[in-house]
Amino acid sequence: MNSATVMMAEMTWPEFAERLREDTVVFLPTGMTEQHGPHLPMGVDHLLPTAIAEMVAGEVDGIVAPTVNYGYKSMPRSGGGPSFPGSTGLDGATLSAVIRDVIRELARHGVRRVCVIDGHFENLWFLNEGIDLAMREVGDPGFRVMCLQHWEFLNRETLERVFPDGYPGIELEHAAVLETSLMLHFYPQLVRSDRIPDNAPMDAPPYDVWPARPEWVPGTGSLTSAAAASAEKGALMAEQYRGDMAAAVRHELIE
Amino acid sequence: MNSATVMMAEMTWPEFAERLREDTVVFLPTGMTEQHGPHLPMGVDHLLPTAIAEMVAGEVDGIVAPTVNYGYKSMPRSGGGPSFPGSTGLDGATLSAVIRDVIRELARHGVRRVCVIDGHFENLWFLNEGIDLAMREVGDPGFRVMCLQHWEFLNRETLERVFPDGYPGIELEHAAVLETSLMLHFYPQLVRSDRIPDNAPMDAPPYDVWPARPEWVPGTGSLTSAAAASAEKGALMAEQYRGDMAAAVRHELIE
Amino acid sequence: MNSATVMMAEMTWPEFAERLREDTVVFLPTGMTEQHGPHLPMGVDHLLPTAIAEMVAGEVDGIVAPTVNYGYKSMPRSGGGPSFPGSTGLDGATLSAVIRDVIRELARHGVRRVCVIDGHFENLWFLNEGIDLAMREVGDPGFRVMCLQHWEFLNRETLERVFPDGYPGIELEHAAVLETSLMLHFYPQLVRSDRIPDNAPMDAPPYDVWPARPEWVPGTGSLTSAAAASAEKGALMAEQYRGDMAAAVRHELIE
Amino acid sequence: MNSATVMMAEMTWPEFAERLREDTVVFLPTGMTEQHGPHLPMGVDHLLPTAIAEMVAGEVDGIVAPTVNYGYKSMPRSGGGPSFPGSTGLDGATLSAVIRDVIRELARHGVRRVCVIDGHFENLWFLNEGIDLAMREVGDPGFRVMCLQHWEFLNRETLERVFPDGYPGIELEHAAVLETSLMLHFYPQLVRSDRIPDNAPMDAPPYDVWPARPEWVPGTGSLTSAAAASAEKGALMAEQYRGDMAAAVRHELIE
Amino acid sequence: MNSATVMMAEMTWPEFAERLREDTVVFLPTGMTEQHGPHLPMGVDHLLPTAIAEMVAGEVDGIVAPTVNYGYKSMPRSGGGPSFPGSTGLDGATLSAVIRDVIRELARHGVRRVCVIDGHFENLWFLNEGIDLAMREVGDPGFRVMCLQHWEFLNRETLERVFPDGYPGIELEHAAVLETSLMLHFYPQLVRSDRIPDNAPMDAPPYDVWPARPEWVPGTGSLTSAAAASAEKGALMAEQYRGDMAAAVRHELIE
Amino acid sequence: MNSATVMMAEMTWPEFAERLREDTVVFLPTGMTEQHGPHLPMGVDHLLPTAIAEMVAGEVDGIVAPTVNYGYKSMPRSGGGPSFPGSTGLDGATLSAVIRDVIRELARHGVRRVCVIDGHFENLWFLNEGIDLAMREVGDPGFRVMCLQHWEFLNRETLERVFPDGYPGIELEHAAVLETSLMLHFYPQLVRSDRIPDNAPMDAPPYDVWPARPEWVPGTGSLTSAAAASAEKGALMAEQYRGDMAAAVRHELIE
Repeated sequence: MNSATVMMAEMTWPEFAERLREDTVVFLPTGMTEQHGPHLPMGVDHLLPTAIAEMVAGEVDGIVAPTVNYGYKSMPRSGGGPSFPGSTGLDGATLSAVIRDVIRELARHGVRRVCVIDGHFENLWFLNEGIDLAMREVGDPGFRVMCLQHWEFLNRETLERVFPDGYPGIELEHAAVLETSLMLHFYPQLVRSDRIPDNAPMDAPPYDVWPARPEWVPGTGSLTSAAAASAEKGALMAEQYRGDMAAAVRHELIE
Repeated sequence: MNSATVMMAEMTWPEFAERLREDTVVFLPTGMTEQHGPHLPMGVDHLLPTAIAEMVAGEVDGIVAPTVNYGYKSMPRSGGGPSFPGSTGLDGATLSAVIRDVIRELARHGVRRVCVIDGHFENLWFLNEGIDLAMREVGDPGFRVMCLQHWEFLNRETLERVFPDGYPGIELEHAAVLETSLMLHFYPQLVRSDRIPDNAPMDAPPYDVWPARPEWVPGTGSLTSAAAASAEKGALMAEQYRGDMAAAVRHELIE
Repeated sequence: MNSATVMMAEMTWPEFAERLREDTVVFLPTGMTEQHGPHLPMGVDHLLPTAIAEMVAGEVDGIVAPTVNYGYKSMPRSGGGPSFPGSTGLDGATLSAVIRDVIRELARHGVRRVCVIDGHFENLWFLNEGIDLAMREVGDPGFRVMCLQHWEFLNRETLERVFPDGYPGIELEHAAVLETSLMLHFYPQLVRSDRIPDNAPMDAPPYDVWPARPEWVPGTGSLTSAAAASAEKGALMAEQYRGDMAAAVRHELIE
Repeated sequence: MNSATVMMAEMTWPEFAERLREDTVVFLPTGMTEQHGPHLPMGVDHLLPTAIAEMVAGEVDGIVAPTVNYGYKSMPRSGGGPSFPGSTGLDGATLSAVIRDVIRELARHGVRRVCVIDGHFENLWFLNEGIDLAMREVGDPGFRVMCLQHWEFLNRETLERVFPDGYPGIELEHAAVLETSLMLHFYPQLVRSDRIPDNAPMDAPPYDVWPARPEWVPGTGSLTSAAAASAEKGALMAEQYRGDMAAAVRHELIE
Repeated sequence: MNSATVMMAEMTWPEFAERLREDTVVFLPTGMTEQHGPHLPMGVDHLLPTAIAEMVAGEVDGIVAPTVNYGYKSMPRSGGGPSFPGSTGLDGATLSAVIRDVIRELARHGVRRVCVIDGHFENLWFLNEGIDLAMREVGDPGFRVMCLQHWEFLNRETLERVFPDGYPGIELEHAAVLETSLMLHFYPQLVRSDRIPDNAPMDAPPYDVWPARPEWVPGTGSLTSAAAASAEKGALMAEQYRGDMAAAVRHELIE
Repeated sequence: MNSATVMMAEMTWPEFAERLREDTVVFLPTGMTEQHGPHLPMGVDHLLPTAIAEMVAGEVDGIVAPTVNYGYKSMPRSGGGPSFPGSTGLDGATLSAVIRDVIRELARHGVRRVCVIDGHFENLWFLNEGIDLAMREVGDPGFRVMCLQHWEFLNRETLERVFPDGYPGIELEHAAVLETSLMLHFYPQLVRSDRIPDNAPMDAPPYDVWPARPEWVPGTGSLTSAAAASAEKGALMAEQYRGDMAAAVRHELIE
């Protein structure tokens, strides 16, 4: 029995109905299936927001809807791009439609507070669009949605401790210290610790080109070194997420 | 370490690349998030095809792509319909687009064999359409896709053992003996055994109406009694799936 | 002069306006243009629902809107599939859009009751989707739509008389006893009686594959024998349709 | 038996296959369901191109595909607009998608020559777009499509005989002399001869406004007088169509 | 400083907000980028409506929104078609979506009167559709839109002065006397006066074919002679536009 | 005469055809119409990339296609959001479709090198998607597209000179020092110099919410102070753009 689960997929419908109050927040984890270097599994971008959503939902008595496991197509400068086998993306309009439909259906159930937690950099604008389309269709000014990408919650203090030599920015952090540390914290059994890469950072120009140039991207798929990753750093970030995301959710959606 | 996993989301990209041969079958589990009576979790329709895909992939050295957790909107006569809280469906074109995009991307990776395993009755035609659109875009006559709904593989002998009083057909079997038994086999910890319903079967007319009529559907959400469900029946069905699906996949996609 | 016609295309607009009351049912026949064996014309799937709609509309003082002559793409296991010349299908989203637009426009005219009568197995879910999209746009809880596929109205007694050796199910009945008998009843001049096929039933597996396998389908295009068809059986089914469909329409849409 | 029919819906698939040569022209009649004054049925715009296509196909040994009975939304200045009950239009993208799908499917059958014959003024640009989209998808430079609106074939001599006082242009000719005469020729039993209107012509400004102004349109729905219509004028126009359309089709698609 | 500009792109947002009253008309110029003969620039179809909108807005204290510079694909019989380098068109659904979105957003700002001024013959029906879709989404019966193609405002008297030998109709007037004269009036520096063509008129049949036949179109790209063009004729037409368009806009949208 | 213009809209088609070689770069400026504080016109986001494209095209003998004047909807944290009058955005799929269509048409003309220059932060991912869709349709591996947002080309040295107190990042720079300085350089007559705002920077949280919170955004619409802007700083940035963009374009698309 799972009477205390926050996972919607594990609840019966009467349990879901019972839990649902005016200000219950339904979390929607979104991500991607794409290469994450030689040491991380291809599900990182959907596994992390699922774990983070479960953690934050526990803090605010929320519910976690099933994860959207596929996201927008990988781009070379932020995820390594289309040339790595396994990176499996959706067209932008498809992703926006999934988000629109799920949110519209949640609103139809009586849900009035949704928080999208994303783990794939390239998703953001198609999530924004899906939410905007849903708001237009729901047409209820009291219905509220929040959307966040988890790394945006890292504050200066945490960043200084995780990146004592300086934070390179989220684009370079693909399959590097940030994601590896969080995976070591949340899913240690899925990290191939003996293959953590230590390559030089990608040196990308300030623009994109099509067809993509595989030679722009380090051969490992990690856009910079992950050598400094640790489960401790992962725990530190997770703790900040737990506190700050719960506070933000309470501030925007509950109180 | 998960070196033996068949789950694509748990593989690194070099592991995926290494495994991928000309005739490797990539399984795509598809389902829904919807009410399944007072005793089954709302994820049944995506949890079962995920487990079945993992089992069959193990038989044929295949790979299981991440599950599509949302499916087509529930209809009263087969899933209870829109009036149960928690049933969260996609528009038809959205579901078809997800399937089209994922299959097109798999083909771009060099995958040449895909098997969609579905667990939600209402999905079938939107899966068919998504596959057809992908075939048109892939444009490679050697690229092959197979699509199945798991219960279609139950043969007369199995059905007679699972339903000694006669098989009522898959539509009535929503959240009833078939699904409950399979959940007791694959996910026993998610079944609320003390709440297995024993209601009379739904008595639906041979047509649909809009707006939906909640009064057509038994109040439990199970479309007929699930009282005769058992883990043994689940195991029996699972074994048939293991053998017959693997044989069909080998016949159509590998040999 | 056609003052008594129920066909909307044959009415002038003042005649249509005069006839239209709060509970007038507008019937929308939908179908397909596809192979129906060596003996039946390719219009069977739109010709039959047109005739049935005209018959039922006569019973309930309804109106028959012009027929949608093209439907969803033929599949091998239910219609013979794409390899027969002449089978001319629409994409799923196209069919849904046609249904959505026609229903939305009828609602704009002041029509409040619509009954879709379909004659092509593969259409059902795209009709459902089109109706659902129209309901969302019309946004009037008093606006009601009913959707049926004609063979679903055949009751046990009729089936036993039409199929003394057992009803093989609608998928196998493509261009076989059921459709041939109804065509002999409604459109005898369009049946090539000297070419009624008597082939063995299709033996299809419980899944679909792409590209389609023409060798699954009997060469005639009839999925089982039509030899036992007769105009009398057609009349018997038509009479059941007349009574039971009119009763269902009255029950759901008028009374 | 209909061995000599040119109507695809009345052919069996072997008859269709036998008839189809490299240069066989498949005609696709397109139209609308909309008000046509107090004397003409609402199907005029699809009934006329069906009859014309059948006539021209007979001249060039062609085939007539089933008619598309719904077309683009009526506009006040050419069809009376949305305020007449019964005018039932499709969105532009829906109509284009129907045309695209039907032409793509015909090309898949091996058809290499298509001629769209349209009877609804407002359809033209959505037909053009549907054909253009189909050409892009078919991708075969030897595949040819022709598209015409029937009245465009009336030459000066015919116009002078039909309109001795001057041709007012096709927009004003909605449900007036041109269409009434052709209906009296092709479908005399569908014309309410005692209600042929004789109203003054619509006096519309050189622009459109939304919401539509019903007061711009004569109350009859005929945009000018139909009093001068006659079956003889219809026959005259039909004969010109027979000769000139057949010649144009031969010139562009066959020779 | 541009305090007196009517161009929205040159206003600050407080200036725009200040100007916007209940009956302020926002003009939306639409056009195309396509060949206009050897003497006119490819921007004619968007340059002219921009200048005309600016002129008329000045008369009625209106505002001119930024121009939509791309329009529907050129057709041989009205614009020369796809074979001229530089003709850069949008799909029909794309153009309709742009118009729908811009009008919906203007309505969201509090704009209640929009006037679309178009300069590209082939755009009209996709503009109509975009406006219709916007009206449906805006859902405010007091919101009004007007749509015009500028040449439709030329009255008999002006036409007789501009075309003393007879007006050939707008399709033939592509890159000919009408457009050349207006360009000489509004943008004289953009006309290559030494290359004004004097070719015979296009002799096109009363239908279209795909693939397009470049040989139908005069090699210059002008569909008939432009030799009789002059700045004086341009001024004459412009003056009629100024008076009559302003009057129509006042009549339909302001008074 | 404009024989030396790089602007496609001002060229005749023979001039365009003559200029077009295998490696000619066609620049496509994209932007938005939205609030830019009390001192800048609402066209900033399309005016700047137009000027920059013209400048860079002059360096590399390129051509500038007409500007796309509308872009993706403004968001509070980067552009002030939907609550400012005048901000007029497109849906994401609309913008992507415009880009896809224009690029596909340029490829049809024989253009083989396209460079999108964008001036609206929120556009990026919908441009990426439009380009990706065009690449898929063009299907020519030798066809190359480059996409850039102009501020990404500012190097450390320039940023230190323009922002001696530190660069706040592009999101905060909306209608502030960067854009104001560039406008003072390129379009000084459009800047209301007496209304340059000096408000404190926006203090936005690391997430978005719907409905948007107008109170997050400074009342001026400038997301931080623009007081330090100057034409000299604009010239400095413009010079870097001229050199570095031309070099990047040569490197990626020409050499």
